[in-house]
Amino acid sequence: MTIDDARLARVALGWLVEPGSRALWLRVADHGPVRVLEGLLAGGREAPMRQAAGARLGDADPRRLAEAALARARRLDARLVIPEDDEWPAALETLIDICDPNATDPIDRDAAPPLCLWVRGPWRLDEALDRSVAVVGARAATAYGAQVAREIGYGLASRDWTVVSGGAYGVDGYAHRGALAGGGITVAVLACGVDLAYPASHASLFDRIAEDGLLISEWPPGAEPFRHRFLIRNRVIAAITRGTVVVEAGPRSGSLQTLRRAGELKKCRMAVPGPVTSAMSVGCHEQLRKPQEVTLVTGVPQVVEVVGAIGDDLAPVPRGPEHARDRLAPVEQRLLEALLKRKPLSSEAVAARARVPAPDAMRILPSLVMRGFARRREHGFVLAPDDAGAAA
Amino acid sequence: MTIDDARLARVALGWLVEPGSRALWLRVADHGPVRVLEGLLAGGREAPMRQAAGARLGDADPRRLAEAALARARRLDARLVIPEDDEWPAALETLIDICDPNATDPIDRDAAPPLCLWVRGPWRLDEALDRSVAVVGARAATAYGAQVAREIGYGLASRDWTVVSGGAYGVDGYAHRGALAGGGITVAVLACGVDLAYPASHASLFDRIAEDGLLISEWPPGAEPFRHRFLIRNRVIAAITRGTVVVEAGPRSGSLQTLRRAGELKKCRMAVPGPVTSAMSVGCHEQLRKPQEVTLVTGVPQVVEVVGAIGDDLAPVPRGPEHARDRLAPVEQRLLEALLKRKPLSSEAVAARARVPAPDAMRILPSLVMRGFARRREHGFVLAPDDAGAAA
Repeated sequence: MTIDDARLARVALGWLVEPGSRALWLRVADHGPVRVLEGLLAGGREAPMRQAAGARLGDADPRRLAEAALARARRLDARLVIPEDDEWPAALETLIDICDPNATDPIDRDAAPPLCLWVRGPWRLDEALDRSVAVVGARAATAYGAQVAREIGYGLASRDWTVVSGGAYGVDGYAHRGALAGGGITVAVLACGVDLAYPASHASLFDRIAEDGLLISEWPPGAEPFRHRFLIRNRVIAAITRGTVVVEAGPRSGSLQTLRRAGELKKCRMAVPGPVTSAMSVGCHEQLRKPQEVTLVTGVPQVVEVVGAIGDDLAPVPRGPEHARDRLAPVEQRLLEALLKRKPLSSEAVAARARVPAPDAMRILPSLVMRGFARRREHGFVLAPDDAGAAA
Repeated sequence: MTIDDARLARVALGWLVEPGSRALWLRVADHGPVRVLEGLLAGGREAPMRQAAGARLGDADPRRLAEAALARARRLDARLVIPEDDEWPAALETLIDICDPNATDPIDRDAAPPLCLWVRGPWRLDEALDRSVAVVGARAATAYGAQVAREIGYGLASRDWTVVSGGAYGVDGYAHRGALAGGGITVAVLACGVDLAYPASHASLFDRIAEDGLLISEWPPGAEPFRHRFLIRNRVIAAITRGTVVVEAGPRSGSLQTLRRAGELKKCRMAVPGPVTSAMSVGCHEQLRKPQEVTLVTGVPQVVEVVGAIGDDLAPVPRGPEHARDRLAPVEQRLLEALLKRKPLSSEAVAARARVPAPDAMRILPSLVMRGFARRREHGFVLAPDDAGAAA
């Protein structure tokens, strides 16, 4: 299996099954995308998958469609990023933890990580999203909400924080405009293909974002923004950021679902208050009346205080004696850095990630296992927990 | 010692020593006002008291001044209420617990209960203040703050809660006006004599409050509103209410001191959010960022939820069997619903509120009194407390 096979298989699977499917994600984690796609197309043991794919199976050849989508993306100067790529945001993988198989709402059952992301823009995902904050809210923002969203977008950008939002009218749009004016990176996570402008009047805004920031979508170029996709999409916004700020929200605003996801993912939740006479602040105030959970913020300094602190709190993971790892040869270190903590990677995949010749990886990885730096799993290698082998 | 001696002594002591003196309050609690005054005038063991009284001792005869103040009050139709009176609000006594002898700020050292209160208005203090909420905030209220203060005042009054505030421009004034419009009791706690209008343009507002509500002051008629008196006064507002709501407040608003006092006294603290772009909401937002302490409220239902719940904890008023009232004839029920708990209404007024012919009201109301559902007062009828007559 090459990384290009994985790419094609992930796109094909994404076309067959709507993003978020917990069952599909678990199968892919166990067997890799190529084998799962083969099984799905061949019938047989993939019954739950075939059910999820439903009518689309047999409709057309998913591999062909995937190839066409990839070709279309190349023409658009868009690219596909998959978990096997270095720049894949590791935080997305935590979404599997918040899937609730017993939930009545399918959106809560199937909140699994994306299989792949389509991306337009000049930045690596991991780098752009390392210090990022979601700024979300009502489409029907008031003048007040527009002003606050723009100021928060601007202020975050000027402090070198990436702004993440959807692509809607109102708070989303103003947050992006503020970030662009602040000279920072802004990321629009769309519920349709990265080549579609929805709403249409945001076409030039999206072009600017694609130039200076990032447009991201789980759906391939050309995919339409069906209504349910916005709610599926929200989990990505919550997962790739350190925290979510709701600027304005009516009582049933979709942005409150993003805030909830952020809570489930143990990210910071923030809301901006507003006039109690404004319907567009009702949702924010309701959230702020859960005081242990959602922090009132009045501007960027307070937002940064919240996400900055949490970032620092999370970051100093107690690490084993680091010098043992420092004594490894450079090629060994690169292979080790290419390993993931939980997801097993084949030696070929590790070699590709580490940009090391495959035969070298095949030779060195077992020795890293022997010295306790890595572990062998059924389907490949993972990093040993907390550098267990460091003492060796 | 008669109660009139106590009255005179308390007024004289209040003239000698600025309200709030912890040392004086403790002496009076131990020895009674008459003996403390005698000691103070005779010199001797009352050294700390003499120090507190300072230049005023020997300046004039405090007993004469007290008599003059009481005479002036009678001419104004004002009265003096002292702790020896039934109607003295017991909650005031808890102020002694929050005096901090080690505080650097004298306002915090000397936050003792008032020695007496001068009162204008038709209500007993204890009854008027039993279910009361302080609504305070910035003098320089914005149009938004004015609207919210008025609505909260109105809403509390219509739900039979007493509004308590200062007498200042801005939030204080609007809260009172709202409560008056809502037909409820509103109480202005002043930092000057109850005969002075400060600010002058509030003269007619104060007259209306003296008619339908209460004007209260620790200072005798004629006393001027020195600046430090507002901060001394705030402790009374916090102590006589079940909770304090700040509607709008700049970062250093005096209303935040009232809120702090409410916290020290274990009363509910609430704040109304506003636009983050408004300087007049900065103080509220700062308070709301202490989430375990101050509750965000957007309107009267939430205020009542907070103070009502605490009230229920404190006072699970056992109610008589309610079905007795259900057995009344429809017209009787309507008349009963038209009565107020505290403010006597003429039978004509009850008829108008109940939309019942006046002769019917004149005939039925006395029978409701006889059966214990209503009470006759000098100026009309009131509802019997907690359907006292229901069992009849």
